[in-house]
This record gives sequence, structure tokens and C-alpha cells, in this order.
Amino acid sequence: MIKTDILIIGAGPTGLFAVFEAGLLQLKCHLIDALPQPGGQCSEIYPKKPIYDIPGYPEVLAGDLVDNLMEQIKPFQPGFTLGERAETIEKLEDDTFIVTTNKGTKHHAPVVAIAGGLGSFEPRKPLLDNLSKYEDNGVAYMIKEPEVYRDKKVLIAGGGDSALDWSIFLADVASEVTLVHRRNEFRGALDSVEKVQQLKNEGKINLITPAEVVGLKGEETLEMVSVKDTSTDEVTDIEVDNFIPLFGLSPKLGPIGDWGLEIEKNAIKVDNTLDYQTNIPGIYAIGDVNTYPGKLKLILCGFHEATLMCQSAYQRIFPDKKYVMKYTTVGGVTGFDGSKKEAPKAVVKAID
Amino acid sequence: MIKTDILIIGAGPTGLFAVFEAGLLQLKCHLIDALPQPGGQCSEIYPKKPIYDIPGYPEVLAGDLVDNLMEQIKPFQPGFTLGERAETIEKLEDDTFIVTTNKGTKHHAPVVAIAGGLGSFEPRKPLLDNLSKYEDNGVAYMIKEPEVYRDKKVLIAGGGDSALDWSIFLADVASEVTLVHRRNEFRGALDSVEKVQQLKNEGKINLITPAEVVGLKGEETLEMVSVKDTSTDEVTDIEVDNFIPLFGLSPKLGPIGDWGLEIEKNAIKVDNTLDYQTNIPGIYAIGDVNTYPGKLKLILCGFHEATLMCQSAYQRIFPDKKYVMKYTTVGGVTGFDGSKKEAPKAVVKAID
Repeated sequence: MIKTDILIIGAGPTGLFAVFEAGLLQLKCHLIDALPQPGGQCSEIYPKKPIYDIPGYPEVLAGDLVDNLMEQIKPFQPGFTLGERAETIEKLEDDTFIVTTNKGTKHHAPVVAIAGGLGSFEPRKPLLDNLSKYEDNGVAYMIKEPEVYRDKKVLIAGGGDSALDWSIFLADVASEVTLVHRRNEFRGALDSVEKVQQLKNEGKINLITPAEVVGLKGEETLEMVSVKDTSTDEVTDIEVDNFIPLFGLSPKLGPIGDWGLEIEKNAIKVDNTLDYQTNIPGIYAIGDVNTYPGKLKLILCGFHEATLMCQSAYQRIFPDKKYVMKYTTVGGVTGFDGSKKEAPKAVVKAID
Repeated sequence: MIKTDILIIGAGPTGLFAVFEAGLLQLKCHLIDALPQPGGQCSEIYPKKPIYDIPGYPEVLAGDLVDNLMEQIKPFQPGFTLGERAETIEKLEDDTFIVTTNKGTKHHAPVVAIAGGLGSFEPRKPLLDNLSKYEDNGVAYMIKEPEVYRDKKVLIAGGGDSALDWSIFLADVASEVTLVHRRNEFRGALDSVEKVQQLKNEGKINLITPAEVVGLKGEETLEMVSVKDTSTDEVTDIEVDNFIPLFGLSPKLGPIGDWGLEIEKNAIKVDNTLDYQTNIPGIYAIGDVNTYPGKLKLILCGFHEATLMCQSAYQRIFPDKKYVMKYTTVGGVTGFDGSKKEAPKAVVKAID
């Protein structure tokens, strides 16, 4: 059982910044995310795209924003349960919560903050009869640990940035990379498309277009993928260790929708007059996942909501303590790791 | 008469960021500030101090944050009335406002956003009978334009960072710099204290301590300052063109307190359930100057409040238009100066 002060569901920018604000209050956080790495959409969907409306950043790449947030929260040593989806919640008699993931990992905390963005990103899957048989036995929809594919024969399907970028990356890792797409045209960053062209020319990526995967074979684990050339209808069996269809991710509110929270337009209603708490005391919702009058789904709004949530969480956890806010410029930042950042102190010194 | 869409009172971080969010909605802004430069406290009081709780910045110097915000809002060409304090407000029959400064500059706008921080910074003045006679005739409490002191004889009084830093700066500009302080010890950044010591040793700063200014003389303009050595009680008259007492700034809500706005604990009450509007429709208050249940006086909260305020201002100015928010990552930023920032577009390209 993982124990923490604030259990944050969703490790996007809002969830990550909550760790910082909680840390200033000496509260520990643990984050659960269905994606294999922190950063939410910023890391998974558009890490190389610029954002222009983060206050104080005329321009910042989404991936860099996440890196900066990870650096900012480092002193507060958050825990992470990644690649697992928060599935069920149970309220104990002492008003604390147990949240269990789809893999059975249990987390116990007095406060739960849902920072789930647009929901957990579920992969779009190809329509193949025996697909589920091979899930985790050769078929994966996200690449969590690239080293798994070291010296393996990998077949990727898809025509967007993920398919292009992972084909490029795995060309150096896997023993064979085959990229299958239903068109000859790919849609993505120009340099990614050009790099795949180059790797294909060098024989490092085996490109099959226009084509689609029509069947999977194998005793226990995946052994063979059937690929149909859609210009000739000819079907070829290709020997593989792994099949990775990268057809995009689509956000789903998912199991959280069944937790008894008030939902409106696929978002969780919160009390914006005070602390972004939901209808269940002790459960908060911050960032894109929540809704209230005038709500804007902007990262900068999530930062504010996370900050006010932490103050309320502190009151819930320590009802008898009075917290007096200190500015970081004055009080510095004292990490749980013993680190201390603070402004250089003024000296009092005679001039003679 | 200066005309704009949103008249922002206070050019600190919150006021500056409001320009950006307004600009995304194609609304123009003009800012009034009593200080001689944008940035509020961040520029005037602690430009060289680090802030640790700006989301996405593990550490940023207050002055750098202001520079970055100025860069971020540049495409939206804000106007500035600096070194003047907003004094009176008048509501016209068409529900627009005219705001006049202490220097008589008039501004006309349908929306007023007060982003006044802790108030306008008023200098602490020395107790000298005829002080007011020389104000703007040789006596100044802030340095707005250093070039005014080129080849002048300047006497600075004070023992903190401002007195130290301006003595250092003006040592290269003025023909004579005299620094008077009631103690031998100065309180400030170590390198500033050491630099003043060095300039004194080189004869570039004339240091008189422990001492205080006890009188001012001059026909029309300031000609002479009487300085008492407090260890001997001896008084010396020193010929000067300028006397600059730098005894610190203290924030005062000031004339805004008489505008008919609901005030609570020296802050302006706003509607945090929607748009941070005050009790007078069309006047908003954002950032440290406002108060509501759970209010935190943090820069990051001001950013959020500024953003929601702009949406409401848009509705007020264009009641019949429906604004559909576009993410900057998707829609880019189109400046009023014709500039365009946007994410590199994806290409659709065949690989053969």
C-alpha cells in the first residue's frame, strides 16, 4: 500500500505543479498516470510543440515545460505510479481514501486531487479478432520502455507523428523495424517524414504502403503479422516479436466517471468559490478535468486551482493548525531531500 | 485623451500578463503605474531576488520575470502612462470610464482592471520643514530618468539597497555623489556594499556617516543641503543640485480607496465565482489588490485572475459576439504589429 498526503490522479502540468505547492506546505504527493511518463498530453501528444500562453514564457515547448516542472518539484520527491489507470476509490471510516489501479496497485491518502486533464488517454485499436489475446504478449499500444524492443523484430502501424518518431527511434534499437501505413503519405513534422525516408533508403526501416494489418498469429505470444498490400490485395505474413499499432490516443474520463462525482459535460463539477473541491469532501478536481462557471481549460488556470486546492487540503489534514504563507523569495524552498534554495541574504556591513 | 479597450491600473506581473490574454481576444490595453518603469515590486523592490513559485520556473529573478512578460506581450503593443498615479475615475453615461492621473493625463476605456498590487508605492520622506518646496526642484524620491543627473552634484540619503545601488550607478553619471547615512553600517547585497566601499576609496563617492540631513536651502531650486555629523553634532552645508532621499517605499491603496469600491482589509472585494469584477460593473480587480474567500497573494493567482477577467471584459465590450477559445499551440499568436508566432505545421508527404 502506497501512503501519501495528497494522491494526485494525473501527472500533467497541473498535477505536477500541485506537488510543488503541497511541498511548500510540507505535504507529500504521489501521482498516478495511465501514460508511461509524467507530463500528460504535453509529453505524449505534443512535446515538440510550442505553447505561447504560459505566463512569463514568450514561447516554451510542451516537453520543456514538463522538464522544468519536474525540476521545480524535485525537492519534494513525489512518488509515481505510471502506466496504470486509477480504477476504483473507497472511502474509509476515517474519511481517508484508497485508490486502486487497473493493475491492482493500492494507494492510501486523506486527500485525492483529480488532475486528469481530458481523461486517461486510451489507444485507438485496430479491428482484429484475436487482438486481445496478444495484448502484453507482443502487442502494445504505447511504448513504455523502449529497451524492451532491443534486438527484436518490431512492426509499427500508423501514419502520424508517433508512428514516424518511434520507427526512427527503434531503428537504432530493434533488429528489424517494419512500418505499415494505409497510405503512401504520412502526416507529421517535416523532419520526421524526411528522416523515415532516409532510414528507408538506408534499409534500416522496412516500409510497406499502402497496406494494413489484417491478422495476427502465434501460439502463446505473437509470432506473425499478416499484412495486406491494399493496392494489390496480396497478403504477406511477416515474422515479428512485436506489433505496435499507433493510431492515436483518445481521452476518456473512464472509471473516474463512476466514482459518484457530479459530472457536467464530461468534466467534474467543483466549488470554484473556494477550493475546487468536488461534491465528495476530500476529493478535489483541478485543471482541465474540472468545470465551473467561466472555466477555461488552460494550463495557467490549473496552476492556480492546484495552489488553492493545496491550501484546502492542508486544512483538511491539519484542521487545528494555522498555516501562515511565506513568500518563496523571502522563505526560500526547503526540500524533503534536505535541499535548500533561498535568495542571497542581505548583509549589514560598515563602510569605512 | 488616451483611448483603449482595457485600462489597466498597475504594471506589475498581473497587469502585464493581462495585456497578453486581452491581446489573444484582440483587445488593446493601456497601463498606468506610479513607478517609473513596468514590473511593479518585481522591478522596483527586488529585481535581483529569485522567485521559486512561478510555475515552470524552478528559479527566476524577479527582474527577469518582468523582462520575459514584456517580451511575451510585445506583439500586443500596450501603451504606458508611467510615473503617474491614477487619481480619479468618472463613469460616463455610456458606462465607459475616464481615469485621470495626478499629472492630469486622461484615459478613456469601457473596462478598467485594477492590478494595483499592494497599492501605489509612496516614498517615505525625511521630516524637513521646507521639503515640499523643493520637490521636483531638486528633491526626488525615485530616480525615473538617470540622465537628469548627468554632471550634477547629487546627495543621496539612505542605507539600503536603493541608496547603495543608485550611488554606484550615479558615480559614473553625476559630477559628484555624496552618500549620507545615519549609521556606519549599510544593509544590502554584499557586492553592493563592497562596491560602494571601493568607490569611496577611489574618491568617486563622498561618504558621510553617521550623519543625517537636517536642512535644505535655495532660492527657487535646491542649492544646499545641511548635513549633521551625529557623532559630533557638527553641521556642514554641502552645495548640491539634487537631494535624493531613498528611505524605502511603502505601498498605499491611495486614491483608488475612494472610488466607491467595496474594500476589505485594504483590498478590493471581487466576485471570485466568475470574473473578479468589483461591485462597480466594468471595474475589475486582479492580483494582490483584490480579496475573496481563500485569496492567496501570489503572482500565479494574478495570472489566472487576469485571464478570466479578460474573458468577461470581452463579453462586456462585445455583448453579442461569442468568443471561441483557441489554444495558442493550435492557433498561434497574431500580434497587433502584424507579427505571427505559430507552431510548425505538420506536413503530409509521401515516402517512396
